[in-house]
Amino acid sequence: MRHLLSTTDLSYSQAITILDTAQEMARISEGPVKKLPTLRGRTIVNLFFEDSTRTRISFEAAAKRLSADVINFSAKGSSTSKGESLKDTAQTLQAMGADAVIIRHSASGAAQRLASSHWTSGSVINAGDGTHEHPTQALLDAYTIRKHLRVGTSDLRGLTVAIVGDILHSRVARSNVHLLTLLGAQVILVAPPTLLPVGAQTWPVQISYDLDSVLPLVDAVMMLRVQQERMNDFFFPTAREYSHYYGLNADRLKLMKPNAIIMHPGPMNRGLEITAECADSARSVILEQVTNGVSVRMAVLYLLLAGAPNGIGELSQ
Amino acid sequence: MRHLLSTTDLSYSQAITILDTAQEMARISEGPVKKLPTLRGRTIVNLFFEDSTRTRISFEAAAKRLSADVINFSAKGSSTSKGESLKDTAQTLQAMGADAVIIRHSASGAAQRLASSHWTSGSVINAGDGTHEHPTQALLDAYTIRKHLRVGTSDLRGLTVAIVGDILHSRVARSNVHLLTLLGAQVILVAPPTLLPVGAQTWPVQISYDLDSVLPLVDAVMMLRVQQERMNDFFFPTAREYSHYYGLNADRLKLMKPNAIIMHPGPMNRGLEITAECADSARSVILEQVTNGVSVRMAVLYLLLAGAPNGIGELSQ
Amino acid sequence: MRHLLSTTDLSYSQAITILDTAQEMARISEGPVKKLPTLRGRTIVNLFFEDSTRTRISFEAAAKRLSADVINFSAKGSSTSKGESLKDTAQTLQAMGADAVIIRHSASGAAQRLASSHWTSGSVINAGDGTHEHPTQALLDAYTIRKHLRVGTSDLRGLTVAIVGDILHSRVARSNVHLLTLLGAQVILVAPPTLLPVGAQTWPVQISYDLDSVLPLVDAVMMLRVQQERMNDFFFPTAREYSHYYGLNADRLKLMKPNAIIMHPGPMNRGLEITAECADSARSVILEQVTNGVSVRMAVLYLLLAGAPNGIGELSQ
Repeated sequence: MRHLLSTTDLSYSQAITILDTAQEMARISEGPVKKLPTLRGRTIVNLFFEDSTRTRISFEAAAKRLSADVINFSAKGSSTSKGESLKDTAQTLQAMGADAVIIRHSASGAAQRLASSHWTSGSVINAGDGTHEHPTQALLDAYTIRKHLRVGTSDLRGLTVAIVGDILHSRVARSNVHLLTLLGAQVILVAPPTLLPVGAQTWPVQISYDLDSVLPLVDAVMMLRVQQERMNDFFFPTAREYSHYYGLNADRLKLMKPNAIIMHPGPMNRGLEITAECADSARSVILEQVTNGVSVRMAVLYLLLAGAPNGIGELSQ
Repeated sequence: MRHLLSTTDLSYSQAITILDTAQEMARISEGPVKKLPTLRGRTIVNLFFEDSTRTRISFEAAAKRLSADVINFSAKGSSTSKGESLKDTAQTLQAMGADAVIIRHSASGAAQRLASSHWTSGSVINAGDGTHEHPTQALLDAYTIRKHLRVGTSDLRGLTVAIVGDILHSRVARSNVHLLTLLGAQVILVAPPTLLPVGAQTWPVQISYDLDSVLPLVDAVMMLRVQQERMNDFFFPTAREYSHYYGLNADRLKLMKPNAIIMHPGPMNRGLEITAECADSARSVILEQVTNGVSVRMAVLYLLLAGAPNGIGELSQ
Repeated sequence: MRHLLSTTDLSYSQAITILDTAQEMARISEGPVKKLPTLRGRTIVNLFFEDSTRTRISFEAAAKRLSADVINFSAKGSSTSKGESLKDTAQTLQAMGADAVIIRHSASGAAQRLASSHWTSGSVINAGDGTHEHPTQALLDAYTIRKHLRVGTSDLRGLTVAIVGDILHSRVARSNVHLLTLLGAQVILVAPPTLLPVGAQTWPVQISYDLDSVLPLVDAVMMLRVQQERMNDFFFPTAREYSHYYGLNADRLKLMKPNAIIMHPGPMNRGLEITAECADSARSVILEQVTNGVSVRMAVLYLLLAGAPNGIGELSQ
């Protein structure tokens, strides 16, 4: 495995390896010295064509804990804004000795294009491409679910996860559908018909328009962020109506199983897709998702750059 | 002490400890190897909601000299600009493992809010909140005054310091009033009545509207930056008139005691609140303030993150 | 040598020393551990008044490979945008302990001004000042030419290099004219008369308006970037016409000597001054220029900050 572009590229055992490695990484992050020398002398570039401070910082923290040098490349005000192609940007970073490029781009397929092009010999990690995929988000979600609801290093068989909201535009949803089902979970998509992609019927998921009937069935509910700019256009009429039908609130909380957890990829619109009460409840694992994000990204960087299984062996000794 | 939010939170002995530690740090910065391994593996976030390259860079340099990993988080273009609350931002940083958050915010009280909220278990350092406080600036000012006008590790008893200009909007002035008087100095505020806050009469300071009569009395004069955007509105009529009454110039320099020093928190409006001649004169310690800023910020990070007195003991061995 | 401001400041032996040191640095960058501890504890500031992600990243990567701490100071949104002078900015960086300032500025002479002013005791490296100079670009170009067309550590005697395009506004051209002729190469400037500076006739170069007649003579052809904003004004009528007369394309490639190389400082306007076919051809060394840029910048930082010839001796042991 040289790149991480999509959760569809992962085999079952690769996915489990990443989660298990992340568990090792979490142990190190909790220890007295939070730093591993593993990637000393390696250069990792955050190539962000879209703003995403959270994701950028998470990767940056992960890379620094592995002692890599991190270079932030925001495409704004760069030669890309003067019309330089992705190809030339990528080749330039490669020529400067980037060992990995973490790319965030508004175009679906940008990461794939970068990796398959031979523009770079380094690793490419997709940190979100258009409405396509965001694989490390799905990996941290799977990690979080497993940590809470399963023992040790198993998979997610027997669990049911609802993903609620704007599935149509969500790369988080796409990446999660692949990964969670790969790991044996049952996924239910919950959304108004206007926010479901054409063809979702062919995905290995159940689909529902009724959140209340789904909540009693699930072990985890993943609330997607509402893009405010889509409000009031043809996708759905008003924020109030959206909250009414698809928002998570105290009443709906009561419908959930006793141990079911609440997830959100952040940043939240408190009061829209989730009330503050739910976001801050004891069932919420939203902040743990953030913490786990750093561990999962450390694992991915480690496995891609420092070499797989043996590396893990060394690490856990 | 876990946070540094306001100089009013500091006890006399804490303030002296910070200044003494800064003195140790200065010694290291002057040595052949300018770096201490103390904060290796710690993550420090510069969370800046207002632009302030100087302050950000000073903290960044300080943190890096202590071998910490630094992550810059400019709120522009981040999810905060998509409406994320300070709470969610803070909790996110905490969840990513930030050991300290250095916050600059346009709202008075933002740092306090962050620290008192249990949103973060890390240390919070106020790098300027609205018109409220900027404690590390006051600490570096006190350090600079002590270094020039007092011997060794004493306090500032017997010294008189004038703070001149827009007291009303100045967090630097507020932080200095508390700290300098705590350390035994006499403070005189010099400003037009429109630029003095309501209630300044109750502060432990003298107030004057006449710079010329104050200058012969002081050991240090601290010229505040004029915010150009406040010129020509109801605070004062013209830049020329401001300079005439409250600017430091060559004539006024002659009124000062032989050893009195000139200070400015920067960036200066040369020709407005201070002439180039004064800024560059032998009495000016303005650039030393910048140098001392790094030492003071190293001391603060060190004391908050690496533990107090024992740490200092180890350091000075 | 304390600063690197212009290639005109370099003696023949200094230029050769930089190229030879860069060769050592390249060897390290290719090795298993890409990092040298040489500049540990040193602080290097990228002071960029103009956006230039490529150049900034190249210096950043170079500095980090030498274990220096790097601080990025983009002048946008800083106190310079509030009107702070270059003097005050420079003195502030110096006071914070910057060991080197890498400056990019739209004003010709800015780096020289910074270095000659006693505002800073650190090293100043010109990363491009207006239409004046960009010395590390010329050094990496010379390095690239030597690596391809000469053996070992010699100079460029006997080689002919064409620089093609907007000579008038190009700091890259100016720096290269000095350096390449210093190293013994013959330089031919090829441009429409409107894009040649007044006085170019007095430079130690040949001048031609006819690319086709020059190409068979040269060992290297350096295509300059066309500034799109100059298109359609009085410099030249249309992009199409420019490409027709001064663009490098497949037909012109055939005119070149068998071993002649194609260079471009980047970012390219593919299809304007150079076709994709030429940019990606086997003769193109454009990406190697980028790679060599990091090595050359490592060499410059090393020589300026860690001391010259002895240092090199130590390094190569």
